[in-house]
Amino acid sequence: MAPAQARDESRRSPKWKARRDAIIDTSARLFARRGYHATGIAELCEANDLGKGALYHYIGSKEELLAAIHDRVMDEVMAGADRVAEAGGSPSAQLALHGDELLDVIHRYPDHVWVFLHEFPALTGDRAARFRARRRIYEERIESVLRAGSAAGEFRDLDPWLTARAWFGMHNYTYLWLRPGGRLSARDVAKPFSEIFLRGIETAPGHGAE
Amino acid sequence: MAPAQARDESRRSPKWKARRDAIIDTSARLFARRGYHATGIAELCEANDLGKGALYHYIGSKEELLAAIHDRVMDEVMAGADRVAEAGGSPSAQLALHGDELLDVIHRYPDHVWVFLHEFPALTGDRAARFRARRRIYEERIESVLRAGSAAGEFRDLDPWLTARAWFGMHNYTYLWLRPGGRLSARDVAKPFSEIFLRGIETAPGHGAE
Repeated sequence: MAPAQARDESRRSPKWKARRDAIIDTSARLFARRGYHATGIAELCEANDLGKGALYHYIGSKEELLAAIHDRVMDEVMAGADRVAEAGGSPSAQLALHGDELLDVIHRYPDHVWVFLHEFPALTGDRAARFRARRRIYEERIESVLRAGSAAGEFRDLDPWLTARAWFGMHNYTYLWLRPGGRLSARDVAKPFSEIFLRGIETAPGHGAE
Repeated sequence: MAPAQARDESRRSPKWKARRDAIIDTSARLFARRGYHATGIAELCEANDLGKGALYHYIGSKEELLAAIHDRVMDEVMAGADRVAEAGGSPSAQLALHGDELLDVIHRYPDHVWVFLHEFPALTGDRAARFRARRRIYEERIESVLRAGSAAGEFRDLDPWLTARAWFGMHNYTYLWLRPGGRLSARDVAKPFSEIFLRGIETAPGHGAE
């Protein structure tokens, strides 16, 4: 979403925004099933029960819709990261909370996260740059927790970038099997995952969070 | 690939098979860039410098090509898993070797693995069943190492299915940034990842592999 577009949105009614959000959600499901490139405007119109003109009134373009799906995920992920920062606590406690928050988003938005993780290469120009910048801000939150833990002697002396990649992989990849109403809740997964990861990086087991 | 097709292949010349492998590799790159559904036969013909009839002589159908890309990844992954089983050693040592082998495949086949991880829902019928069965065999190899480690008191008492998902996520997700000729080799990543994971699940640090 370009800044100009964001300004436009701020002048819209709550009803318009709610309808736009519903379109984003429905379209995320469609893109997740069929793929972004293979999904045409006609299918988006049909799924959203809107004519072409009405659809464009809400989304502007197919790529703007894809960017909006990415923003919806990033908004939730960053809100969670902000709650962790506000909660404070040791680096171990913070990393465990980050895991809770991230798995909660993946659990609630499986289609959006599928699209987020699969279709980001389809974003171009400013939208791609904006997505990369937002994702980078989140990545740096995790890396800075790892750095703080090492500096405090709570975590081993680790490569924060590479260690963060291990953490992202372990957590993000749950989008393939973590589902609303499934056998496992986000918390059922977050707890043992945090235990594995924290024991894996702590200088002494149970140093911080346990 | 249906059994009938596999029988056909066994009667082909080495030259035919080499050309087919080259088509699989080129097409994997195309599918990884553009997506399976959005890539047409015309684009596949152009990328492989073949007419439509000649392309079908090698691949039969677009979905057979997708199945062949999945098989190419699975063949390599299972060959690695067999080497680990032959090497023997403690469950910790086995899990570390599995990590080396898996990251080596991901490092060498980034496009194939991208297609493997993104486009498997496009496989249908027998091909989908075959893919799920092969993937399940590999997953069970990892789960059985985890079970053996817990039974031997080397690993904590863990849910083998969920713990394997943590391991798969940590390792598989490297397809996003692990590249041939990149800053990090497969081994540069496999070693610290194994250290994190083994410390995370061992009853006493350095019990087995270190």
